[in-house]
Amino acid sequence: MTTTALDFARRNQPRFLEGLKTLLRIPSVSTDPDHREDVRRAAEHIAAELTHIGLENVHLIETTGTSPTAHPLVYADWLHAPDAPTVLFYGHYDVQPPDPLDEWLSPPFEPTERDGNLYARGAVDDKGQMFMHIKAVESLFAAHGSLPLNVRFLIEGEEEVGGEGIAAYVATKPANLAADFCIVSDTSMFAPGLPTLCIGLRGMIYTEIEVRSARVDLHSGYGGAAPNSFNALAHILAKIKDESGRILIPGILDTVQPPAEDELRSWRSLPFNEDEFRESVLGCQAIVGDARFSVFERLWAQPTFDVHGIPGGFTGVGAKTVIPAKATAKASMRLAPNMTAADTFRRFREYVQQICPLGVSVEVRLIHSAEPSLIPVDNPWIRASASAMTEVWGRETVFVRTGGSIPIVGDLQRHLSLPCVMMGFGLADDNLHAPNEKFSIHNFHLGIESILRFLERASTLRPDRHA
Amino acid sequence: MTTTALDFARRNQPRFLEGLKTLLRIPSVSTDPDHREDVRRAAEHIAAELTHIGLENVHLIETTGTSPTAHPLVYADWLHAPDAPTVLFYGHYDVQPPDPLDEWLSPPFEPTERDGNLYARGAVDDKGQMFMHIKAVESLFAAHGSLPLNVRFLIEGEEEVGGEGIAAYVATKPANLAADFCIVSDTSMFAPGLPTLCIGLRGMIYTEIEVRSARVDLHSGYGGAAPNSFNALAHILAKIKDESGRILIPGILDTVQPPAEDELRSWRSLPFNEDEFRESVLGCQAIVGDARFSVFERLWAQPTFDVHGIPGGFTGVGAKTVIPAKATAKASMRLAPNMTAADTFRRFREYVQQICPLGVSVEVRLIHSAEPSLIPVDNPWIRASASAMTEVWGRETVFVRTGGSIPIVGDLQRHLSLPCVMMGFGLADDNLHAPNEKFSIHNFHLGIESILRFLERASTLRPDRHA
Repeated sequence: MTTTALDFARRNQPRFLEGLKTLLRIPSVSTDPDHREDVRRAAEHIAAELTHIGLENVHLIETTGTSPTAHPLVYADWLHAPDAPTVLFYGHYDVQPPDPLDEWLSPPFEPTERDGNLYARGAVDDKGQMFMHIKAVESLFAAHGSLPLNVRFLIEGEEEVGGEGIAAYVATKPANLAADFCIVSDTSMFAPGLPTLCIGLRGMIYTEIEVRSARVDLHSGYGGAAPNSFNALAHILAKIKDESGRILIPGILDTVQPPAEDELRSWRSLPFNEDEFRESVLGCQAIVGDARFSVFERLWAQPTFDVHGIPGGFTGVGAKTVIPAKATAKASMRLAPNMTAADTFRRFREYVQQICPLGVSVEVRLIHSAEPSLIPVDNPWIRASASAMTEVWGRETVFVRTGGSIPIVGDLQRHLSLPCVMMGFGLADDNLHAPNEKFSIHNFHLGIESILRFLERASTLRPDRHA
Repeated sequence: MTTTALDFARRNQPRFLEGLKTLLRIPSVSTDPDHREDVRRAAEHIAAELTHIGLENVHLIETTGTSPTAHPLVYADWLHAPDAPTVLFYGHYDVQPPDPLDEWLSPPFEPTERDGNLYARGAVDDKGQMFMHIKAVESLFAAHGSLPLNVRFLIEGEEEVGGEGIAAYVATKPANLAADFCIVSDTSMFAPGLPTLCIGLRGMIYTEIEVRSARVDLHSGYGGAAPNSFNALAHILAKIKDESGRILIPGILDTVQPPAEDELRSWRSLPFNEDEFRESVLGCQAIVGDARFSVFERLWAQPTFDVHGIPGGFTGVGAKTVIPAKATAKASMRLAPNMTAADTFRRFREYVQQICPLGVSVEVRLIHSAEPSLIPVDNPWIRASASAMTEVWGRETVFVRTGGSIPIVGDLQRHLSLPCVMMGFGLADDNLHAPNEKFSIHNFHLGIESILRFLERASTLRPDRHA
């Protein structure tokens, strides 16, 4: 059976790639109210794809997330293999904003092939990877007229804005999503050509820290006596994480679950050149962070704190000598396994209030959050996926974690007890969330084959819903 | 003679106010390239006014300041009183940007009267105060058909963007500006109804501190190992001035000239309620700053450091989990008497380079600068002005300094040995550089009378060009 479906997938590579380009041309920037209609257009386009390949019960599910960033879920299923397991495909069709626009070598929403890569916003995160799932199922269907296992798709449009809608849906309608395992392709390979399963994710709290120093902006001639919201904010930010990279919020580090010794050992065996990573992935002068931990621990098993931007004040061309009355930092913490978003945010807010400088007031708001997650290596779906990947790529599959967050993975674990098999085919230099995002076209095609083979293997496993 | 000119000024109050409104309707925002034509329109409007009131040799002087914020000077003179002294009137016709627009109660460029005040961007800084000079001279001319002293006007359009053009002109063409004293009305009264001469100004260096952490923006999943330009910038800013308000740049405080004991004593006698100042002027919870110094010393006689804004990063609606490759703080220092812009900037830049955190690089740019200045109280023009103000306002004139900077004052002292008589009629709650800028209409009219009477008294003094 595999051969036929694989043949179909291989013969249709050019068409699959063109299909992806069509999807990438829709600027579905979920955070930007101006792109609201585009986001919906992307949802409808995917629904049409799912109908076209033979799935049933295809429909959009309106979410109740915070307007104006509420965008529909796309649902589809095919449930005609009663003794076979059920897979839930998760992906997202929304993308990050493309700014800064002037740093793109080709327009972000005009997919462009260069050097074996497809460049576009969303190429790898996550349209390209989510599209692999659809094309794998299409290939199985086209080859056999049916599927060897039951299939559900749940594709969201709010991943880049916190995923409130899918979180509420998963929490309130678990019966509609009953499955044995989930496939998520929103992660990267550890190295080009090295099949990789991600078994751990950091969580996150995304916050706004708003400092107010006066009723109105003041002329900076009052400087020296008037409090300045920006200076005060700088003092607050500098006290949350010190220059050595250590989080200074009391109690935060005590809650972190350290990685098991054998996991640490396996990380040490990964092909990793710190200087190469610094130069080609981070593109920076020096790797920073808490020197008590290895780079992998800093990225995968420790919390951190990053500032993303500070709106307010004078940011125009030229000079304005103003003491801004208000400064707001957009800042987030990544959470290590065993931390919880609620407890972390409570400690974060209390600490910020406590270190607030004289003369200003501070308000801390939670914009969204995600729980960290960690999956056992010996889970049967993980093992089946690892074997499938090893077969397609010709190398042993490695197990890693990622420093990013996929909130839905924690939610699916909590509400549906679903193990998530994170088969990712991105590469470290794919520039996700940055200008010139890309996806390797080779990985796109082998990713489809990997998913095909995994579905084959998975279809022969007995579902064990009470495991 | 005074009576006649005063009568003219009083009879023409409504017309003078309408004339000011017409000028305020021109959005001459010098820092904004989109308002380039408006700035020129304001210059031409003033040139027409100066011609209309009887001045000669009226013309625009193109400046060579950094495009696109180069705007012309307006020059005019009347030099037919050979034995009388010559006054140089200085003012500026450019204004600060009006943002944040949504905090204005009436549109910034539609002058609106409320409660005896005229609300508009530029009402007090400096169109309204500069216009008083024109109207005072117009009144003298209209009453007598000539002037009792020689007059030059030099009005610039780059004050809010650093005044490069006028600085270059003053440095290179001093002969064109030969005079005995200068009148500047760009300061405030110490209290409503209290005639005030400002004899000291702080200088300034306006800088941009640009931190680079990586070649491109990174996904914040790399947080913990990747340097973050914003976090690093916060550490730099927090180390320039500590939370107690003390500047931490080595050597900076050693260069400050402390005020003389009798000046300190006179400051202590000024009508000043610290809590009232905090509440109604600063509009903040607490006065901050270096507790070793009084509030007046902090504002007038000590340097400070204020951050004005931090462009870059993600500042849009919603959430973007990015580690920005670049963060730029717009930040300035105010300089106390005896400090120099060049020495301060050198120390500032060296210190910032020295405290730059691991993993990032920093570049410090000087956007513009102004020297501090201090004028002796017993200067004859200062004494004549004080007497004129006392006569008009019915109270003893007080001598203060200001925490702001008027770069041209230092330049006129240095290149032309001109003492600047700073007769300001603004009030502390005029919201200059902020939304809802205003000018007291009463002060506008008494300001014209004060200048009239001062010109009268000054015309009887013997010019002493070698004093």
